[in-house]
Amino acid sequence: MPRVVVDVMPKPEILDPQGKAVLGALPRLGFSGVSDVRQGKRFELEVDEVSDAMLAEVEKMAETFLANTVIENYTVRVEETA
Amino acid sequence: MPRVVVDVMPKPEILDPQGKAVLGALPRLGFSGVSDVRQGKRFELEVDEVSDAMLAEVEKMAETFLANTVIENYTVRVEETA
Repeated sequence: MPRVVVDVMPKPEILDPQGKAVLGALPRLGFSGVSDVRQGKRFELEVDEVSDAMLAEVEKMAETFLANTVIENYTVRVEETA
Repeated sequence: MPRVVVDVMPKPEILDPQGKAVLGALPRLGFSGVSDVRQGKRFELEVDEVSDAMLAEVEKMAETFLANTVIENYTVRVEETA
């Protein structure tokens, strides 16, 4: 069954406390080499078919429901499953 | 600056209440054609360099800190930024 992935991330200008918490914890855990962390959400949608109409539908879901477009950006992409 | 993305998703055999809540809401919002939804997390890490050592480091971060490997799977991949 085809899968559509919607990634939802906080906009660059929006403070991301979860990402900052992860970033702050890394050195304490002995990790280095990471200068910034942003945390967002990933939705995997199993769809009946991949068509322009279905992708438009998923775009609308992302725009109106999955993402808060005031503070978040989203991307929609098709990912074939094994 | 290179970016490494870590996707963390609930394992297939694990109940995903957030995904189920989204799935249940879709028809009420007038959306159709989606048979399943899984919700997970996406981490974007800005790293100093992309090397085998750095990717091994990020794998270790994912394994020990970003994901709970009892109930979650993760993937690590490099994503070039504009």
